[in-house]
Amino acid sequence: MRNIDEYTITQEVLDRMANAPDRRLKQIMTSLISHLHAFAREVRLTEEEWLQGIQFLTETGHMCDAKRQEFVLLSDTLGLSMLVVAQNNRKPAGCTEATVLGPFHVADAPRYALGQDIANGAVGRPCFVQATIKDRDGSPVAAATVEVWQSDAEGLYDVQYKDNAAHRARGVLRADDMGRVYFKSVLAEAYPIPSDGPVGRMLKATGRQPWRPAHMHFKIEAPGFERLITHVFRDGDQYLDSDVVFGVRSSLITHWDEYPPGPTPDGKESVENFYILRFDFVMNKSVCLEEAGLTEVVNDAHDR
Amino acid sequence: MRNIDEYTITQEVLDRMANAPDRRLKQIMTSLISHLHAFAREVRLTEEEWLQGIQFLTETGHMCDAKRQEFVLLSDTLGLSMLVVAQNNRKPAGCTEATVLGPFHVADAPRYALGQDIANGAVGRPCFVQATIKDRDGSPVAAATVEVWQSDAEGLYDVQYKDNAAHRARGVLRADDMGRVYFKSVLAEAYPIPSDGPVGRMLKATGRQPWRPAHMHFKIEAPGFERLITHVFRDGDQYLDSDVVFGVRSSLITHWDEYPPGPTPDGKESVENFYILRFDFVMNKSVCLEEAGLTEVVNDAHDR
Repeated sequence: MRNIDEYTITQEVLDRMANAPDRRLKQIMTSLISHLHAFAREVRLTEEEWLQGIQFLTETGHMCDAKRQEFVLLSDTLGLSMLVVAQNNRKPAGCTEATVLGPFHVADAPRYALGQDIANGAVGRPCFVQATIKDRDGSPVAAATVEVWQSDAEGLYDVQYKDNAAHRARGVLRADDMGRVYFKSVLAEAYPIPSDGPVGRMLKATGRQPWRPAHMHFKIEAPGFERLITHVFRDGDQYLDSDVVFGVRSSLITHWDEYPPGPTPDGKESVENFYILRFDFVMNKSVCLEEAGLTEVVNDAHDR
Repeated sequence: MRNIDEYTITQEVLDRMANAPDRRLKQIMTSLISHLHAFAREVRLTEEEWLQGIQFLTETGHMCDAKRQEFVLLSDTLGLSMLVVAQNNRKPAGCTEATVLGPFHVADAPRYALGQDIANGAVGRPCFVQATIKDRDGSPVAAATVEVWQSDAEGLYDVQYKDNAAHRARGVLRADDMGRVYFKSVLAEAYPIPSDGPVGRMLKATGRQPWRPAHMHFKIEAPGFERLITHVFRDGDQYLDSDVVFGVRSSLITHWDEYPPGPTPDGKESVENFYILRFDFVMNKSVCLEEAGLTEVVNDAHDR
């Protein structure tokens, strides 16, 4: 076809994928191209606006490196991340809800033993976390691996510091046989997402506030269970209803108890006020394993 | 709102832009977010596919520099560029049609006098271009600035060479008072777009061929006329019906005459076969100037 016009072009682009070998990729690209074209027609995108879009995407790409993922931030702030998380994590009642991974998860976080201080020098008020990992029946989930990461009192994650030499307020722990996970860290505080890139400019240009309510990230994995990526939020935070990445679920908000100076859960003494966050995570069994009656087999294999 | 789910999130994201100061930006973002969410729902995008998309966009950004624009290439191959060009360049019958700018236009191309050789060392068979720039009444468009760029016999633009030290087969000329533009270059050949990046991988994965039919790019500007960005294609090319960027318009295809060795239009002799491309561009007057009767005023001002 050699005389494509603005009305016939969409079908022509789709027709070119007639021989795509991967049916799922073809399905995804068909929907993506259809919506992309529909968008351009709907707003009658001008050539200047198109170029601004190209420049925005280019700058977003240039902001990305091993420590900064501006496209994830873009997806988060446009609500795409939370939508994808929600539609892929429909869980039965009683299970802990999932929320966004966010742009600050990194591979190879350090391992800690239960009870240790994962803050590793991060600034902030002392905060002790006491969590349990259970299944829907209330039985402890043994052998759960729990990855935790959070911002410090400055509202920054370790990777946001230029002199980031060591992981701080970030670690991997293993639950005990009772499904218990406990460690020391610092108090999470509300913070604005990075505003020095294209996403920050987009928020400002569209009149949006850039803050996230205080939260701690958890990624929990255990054999025979669906992986759970979620946060726990602090109640009373002023941004719970306006989280810039749309990640708040009511069930993930809890009270983080404040205590005066004195004995702390790790058997020491605090000279300043400290906090304890208590939260019970409820994991959902992997459907395929549960249906096949294989859950125990997999768990047993893992324990050996 | 603190308990957004997969069904309510789209409206919540749109509501956050309630105070966007720029109405047009708000309109564009509203449509973009709505279609982005509709796409994710329609295909029920998985978290793994979402991550692949993030990685694809990140790599695309990392491929972009002063000489390579992978996002333009992506827009071109998804048909978005041609759609935007078409809907912004609806011209009256008789006017030369517009087509895509492409990713190889660069700023600051060198200026040449009429008749000069713009190849500047680019490899390829000699090709002489003899064009006219006229308005719809057939009157010459005086003072037209004509920018030309093309690939060489290897199918590469100057900026695609690693040792790219000088502009080759690229230049800016000024039409004479008769609206004539003529120069020497090399014969344009069909070529595949760059396949060493994410866009090349996308084409391969979707079973698409990466070739563009042979063409020469023209960007023509003159006071009082709409800017014209277009190509001239060589008839007989095997890719005229399958141009990977959907840029072909029948009216832009013409025969490039081949001549045996002998005298050439520049008064010299060719020891090999050479080509002459003859094409008449018809410019559309700028509507606002035409309506206001100001076309002559602007042209006069420019001539002084």
